[in-house]
Amino acid sequence: MKSFLTYRFCLFLILIPALVFSQSPPSFKIIPLGVKGGIDESNLSSYALAVEGTEEYVCLDAGTLHYGIQKAIAAGIWKGDATELLKSKVKGYLISHGHLDHLSGLVTNSPDDSAKPIYAMAPCIEVLKEKYFSWKSWANFANEGEKPALGKYHYVVLQQATALPLEQTSMSVIAFTLSHSNPYQSTAFLIRHQEEYVLYLGDTGADEIEKANNLRMLWQEVSPLITTKKLKGIFIEVSFSNEQPNQSLFGHLTPRLLMNEMNVLSEFTGEEALKGFPILITHMKPAGNREAVIKKQLSESNQLGLKLIFPEQAKLIKL
Amino acid sequence: MKSFLTYRFCLFLILIPALVFSQSPPSFKIIPLGVKGGIDESNLSSYALAVEGTEEYVCLDAGTLHYGIQKAIAAGIWKGDATELLKSKVKGYLISHGHLDHLSGLVTNSPDDSAKPIYAMAPCIEVLKEKYFSWKSWANFANEGEKPALGKYHYVVLQQATALPLEQTSMSVIAFTLSHSNPYQSTAFLIRHQEEYVLYLGDTGADEIEKANNLRMLWQEVSPLITTKKLKGIFIEVSFSNEQPNQSLFGHLTPRLLMNEMNVLSEFTGEEALKGFPILITHMKPAGNREAVIKKQLSESNQLGLKLIFPEQAKLIKL
Repeated sequence: MKSFLTYRFCLFLILIPALVFSQSPPSFKIIPLGVKGGIDESNLSSYALAVEGTEEYVCLDAGTLHYGIQKAIAAGIWKGDATELLKSKVKGYLISHGHLDHLSGLVTNSPDDSAKPIYAMAPCIEVLKEKYFSWKSWANFANEGEKPALGKYHYVVLQQATALPLEQTSMSVIAFTLSHSNPYQSTAFLIRHQEEYVLYLGDTGADEIEKANNLRMLWQEVSPLITTKKLKGIFIEVSFSNEQPNQSLFGHLTPRLLMNEMNVLSEFTGEEALKGFPILITHMKPAGNREAVIKKQLSESNQLGLKLIFPEQAKLIKL
Repeated sequence: MKSFLTYRFCLFLILIPALVFSQSPPSFKIIPLGVKGGIDESNLSSYALAVEGTEEYVCLDAGTLHYGIQKAIAAGIWKGDATELLKSKVKGYLISHGHLDHLSGLVTNSPDDSAKPIYAMAPCIEVLKEKYFSWKSWANFANEGEKPALGKYHYVVLQQATALPLEQTSMSVIAFTLSHSNPYQSTAFLIRHQEEYVLYLGDTGADEIEKANNLRMLWQEVSPLITTKKLKGIFIEVSFSNEQPNQSLFGHLTPRLLMNEMNVLSEFTGEEALKGFPILITHMKPAGNREAVIKKQLSESNQLGLKLIFPEQAKLIKL
């Protein structure tokens, strides 16, 4: 019996390094507060992101906040009152572009929110000032724009490819312009914590459709982070299935177009680096069985062996 | 035994008129698609209204549409697909004012909606054109405003106290201006079917706070419809509890202010006419236990014996 226990103990000692180092521990945790690309007001794009082991979140887009937090409470991820959690845990919003489904929750919740920054590139902040935090459509809870500016939120303008710290967190962000029905612009956010990164793309069209090279440049930029395993995953949209005609894409991706873009990415990283690499599919637009079709088309065209993840509202993701 | 059956049959014949005429049959049915005055994106103000026995609805405000229809399907009120139901059953939108919580569902659902009218007074239509159906914040699905105007919706401008038919229904509407944090305007919709009416008020402040007489004039206007029992009910907001300071009302009502207004109404109708008259409380703003406090304060101050109804999402109301 004694020798059996010794044997088990030795096995345990041998296995420890394998358990610990076979894959790196998660660096980030993400609570999807909303995941859909339209229609369902209870489940629009917003991803609460924090460094693993901390409770300082930022929201990547803010389509649905309150209802997503309620679902996170129901799922046991968070405890307490939804409004209080929004106030205390969410330290800022990163808004990719000015379309309502990416920011309606921010506007609707603003009267009961706490003071915090809104990070966005200049064109998006202009839309927020002109269209949403205006006294005709709401109240101006921000610090600039129509007077009186109530000043609860303060705008932080992000510049292309320039790092900025995310206040009250240990993360920073670098923004990259995306093309979302050219010349309309959207944004990708590269979030950094120490030497680890996650990349979130707001709505985007494919370079071939947009007649642009924003994605190619982005892939080139982040490819070294993939080959060195510093980038933990990419959130990217697939709004429509392959059946959507090119002239009706409105600046969005299909499974075919996403995989074309992934092939461009693999030109920079090599194919091996993308095997098992987490690609998180966002913003599927509900309509009949479209979401199931998108999933099927993505799986069937996944020649690169990407790890396809389909975020669900209030289901915790660790990367 | 035979005489007992005869007796029961005679009793039945005697009771028929009492059952039928003790109260008039319902004239309108309302499916609340959303009832709250903020924060919860899944449950914002929108009331689908139709003449009893028909399936031609209009939505009074449009804060939450898709999720409310999903809940109505789950409750067995409607059958089918939420998007198809929105397309086929909702014949138009009446928007009281330009604040996001009263129209975000309309904007979010517009890409998948069918062609239909949007009814509103001129200031609200200006906000829709300038802020929401703009190419910076969304796409212009309406027939006026920023070009290209896609023309799925057509604006119908409502004039003060002027009747207009509601297309594809057997109802008509008369609009009245309300004061919602003076000089910002909101709207009351008086819906008519034959000789029966229902009155829906968008957000409104009390005359005493707004330094206005919009409500007094409205009460005077509709009072003959109450005394003649043609008006089946009034939807009116109570956003805050009595604890809310006057300077923080932002153009909303409290239980105390509502009851003051009901007393003004009773000056025109007499108190007797208001006993048991249905007042449907809308737009309570969630925060802690505020909704429960509002209900309690309303019940405790209901000297007039109004029939207070608290609409719930996807719970059918008949008036």
